[in-house]
Amino acid sequence: MTDSPARILRPGQTIGILGGGQLGRMLAEAASALGLKVHVHCPEAGSPAFDVAARHTLAAYDDLDALDAFAAAVDVVTYEFENVPGPTAAHLASRVPVRPGPRALAVAQDRLSEKDFLAAAGIALAGYAAIDTLSDLTQALARFGGKGVLKTRRFGYDGKGQVMIRDASAAAEAFTSLGGAGLVLEALIPFEKEVSVVAARSVTGEVAAYDITENHHEHHILKTSTVPAKVSPGTAAAARQIAGQILTALDYVGVIGVEMFVVGTGADEHLLVNEIAPRVHNSGHWTQDACLVSQFEQHVRAVAGWPLGSAARHSDVVMENLIGAEVDAWQTILTEPAARLHLYGKAESRPGRKMGHVNRIAPRS
Amino acid sequence: MTDSPARILRPGQTIGILGGGQLGRMLAEAASALGLKVHVHCPEAGSPAFDVAARHTLAAYDDLDALDAFAAAVDVVTYEFENVPGPTAAHLASRVPVRPGPRALAVAQDRLSEKDFLAAAGIALAGYAAIDTLSDLTQALARFGGKGVLKTRRFGYDGKGQVMIRDASAAAEAFTSLGGAGLVLEALIPFEKEVSVVAARSVTGEVAAYDITENHHEHHILKTSTVPAKVSPGTAAAARQIAGQILTALDYVGVIGVEMFVVGTGADEHLLVNEIAPRVHNSGHWTQDACLVSQFEQHVRAVAGWPLGSAARHSDVVMENLIGAEVDAWQTILTEPAARLHLYGKAESRPGRKMGHVNRIAPRS
Repeated sequence: MTDSPARILRPGQTIGILGGGQLGRMLAEAASALGLKVHVHCPEAGSPAFDVAARHTLAAYDDLDALDAFAAAVDVVTYEFENVPGPTAAHLASRVPVRPGPRALAVAQDRLSEKDFLAAAGIALAGYAAIDTLSDLTQALARFGGKGVLKTRRFGYDGKGQVMIRDASAAAEAFTSLGGAGLVLEALIPFEKEVSVVAARSVTGEVAAYDITENHHEHHILKTSTVPAKVSPGTAAAARQIAGQILTALDYVGVIGVEMFVVGTGADEHLLVNEIAPRVHNSGHWTQDACLVSQFEQHVRAVAGWPLGSAARHSDVVMENLIGAEVDAWQTILTEPAARLHLYGKAESRPGRKMGHVNRIAPRS
Repeated sequence: MTDSPARILRPGQTIGILGGGQLGRMLAEAASALGLKVHVHCPEAGSPAFDVAARHTLAAYDDLDALDAFAAAVDVVTYEFENVPGPTAAHLASRVPVRPGPRALAVAQDRLSEKDFLAAAGIALAGYAAIDTLSDLTQALARFGGKGVLKTRRFGYDGKGQVMIRDASAAAEAFTSLGGAGLVLEALIPFEKEVSVVAARSVTGEVAAYDITENHHEHHILKTSTVPAKVSPGTAAAARQIAGQILTALDYVGVIGVEMFVVGTGADEHLLVNEIAPRVHNSGHWTQDACLVSQFEQHVRAVAGWPLGSAARHSDVVMENLIGAEVDAWQTILTEPAARLHLYGKAESRPGRKMGHVNRIAPRS
């Protein structure tokens, strides 16, 4: 089934979501508020999104019979993680609209394809090189001053699948540790800040970008997102423009997260794109409480074929992830007058596991 | 099982909700965002709240086996409608905390008990009289200037179960049409405005009241709620104080809706309580988009034994109910920048049926 003319859902119809984590759960909450049903497909029993879905399928992503039944039961398919297997997306897309489309997924789940795509679209990136042999790595390190971050092309997240190389003598060990092929070397950027933009595009090509967010990571996991980011108005506008440019170049439908580095200061301040995530994004959770329309509602609107909502922000906000045992502070957070607690319903906290987040709100500065 | 000391839920535990309509659905969305599970008990197949509940029981309210299983599966019970049968509430309350408690339910589901309770608590009401005979009615009409609204003591809502009497000659017919016993006559009040206050009380006795709301009804069904209401600051403060007084007098846990009349103007402006609803209230739907903590989150916090959130309002707002075919305007409403659409997932629109609502937001005046 093609998606042309674009399918528009009616209230009461069903969004299928691949993946049952907290992003799927918050998408389901947003879909429910708009009168839509949700059907979650996920191979993990007890997934957080199951609790708020009208239906769920507990099956592997390569279970074709389960996928066929899922496709027949839903009116559009979306996903909450970028590592949806390509054959899964293709199989579903032949039966029901998949939004964002399989092409955006293919581009975003391979670091090299993603960087090549962004470079071809005229987006400024840090230097990078495809690495398939130790010789590739040696040559690329020489170009990048002997330093860089070596990453797997696929399946990396939260610092997994990457090794920092600060000296060329460490190259061979790093190369071997990551499997010795299918890698990308990224030049080390002396950045001032890590920022991101969450933006959406509708089936009609309408774009809405939220304000740029300043992000702080701990142990390679996002810890806080602060809005407004301390960047110049020009940089803030450029960040949103870049996100829109990427959305349009991908003929994208849904919400995207675009991570960027702020490099230079004063008149030299500029942006380099780090990576994109073809889904709602952790650095956009602040929109739940500082905007009228959250990134989750925005994604639901987009994939339903509906017009986007306003991405305007009414408050300043700091989003803090509650990771592992940090969630034990929930009772204290509930007593903070300007805090809104969001918990994901995960039965067990483990080190590094995202258990919830809190948005701390202040009047707009 | 008694509720003393008060049971406090942990994230991951389950709130049982009696009733599966839109109020239950929005409670379930709010509970999910706080990491709680929901189990809905409702006798109607396809109930809107089922779609966002981790579990549901499709059974009658007097099915004791089903109630026992429900009580065993949940950690606290609440309800989304005031006509929960007393024996149902009592049966559950012997097994699991029921919040608000059975006493609040008993008071609120009988107009005469409610008025007697409020009067005993020192709350100003319009004149009323218990009517069990035609003679009662004739005498009461004489006291109230020959006019009044005759209502059934139980099961009235949205204008059902009531007859306006404008002339004593119509008394007999009105009396007969409402069953000829178990009635209340309310004096006709020359009110300036209909207003309401939604407020909450926690297990520790903490009270949080939202701003007073000005309500407009059409065909006895709430059509709009506007905040701020055009009343004096003194009246606004008095309204919240009255709501708190009622909550405390009932030893209440959860959200209550208190409907009032504004009578008189200028220095004579004052309030008379019309009725209370022991649940989240349609005139509080504006809190979803004009406050950090909605009435639904507030009710969830209260019944979970958690501290209340701030009832502060960050925006002005007009809530409009979408009744019957009005919901067909959903696509247009989605394009309004300052509007947030809420749909209830009801399969079929019928005249008088509440299908959704829209909150139209403006900066705080």
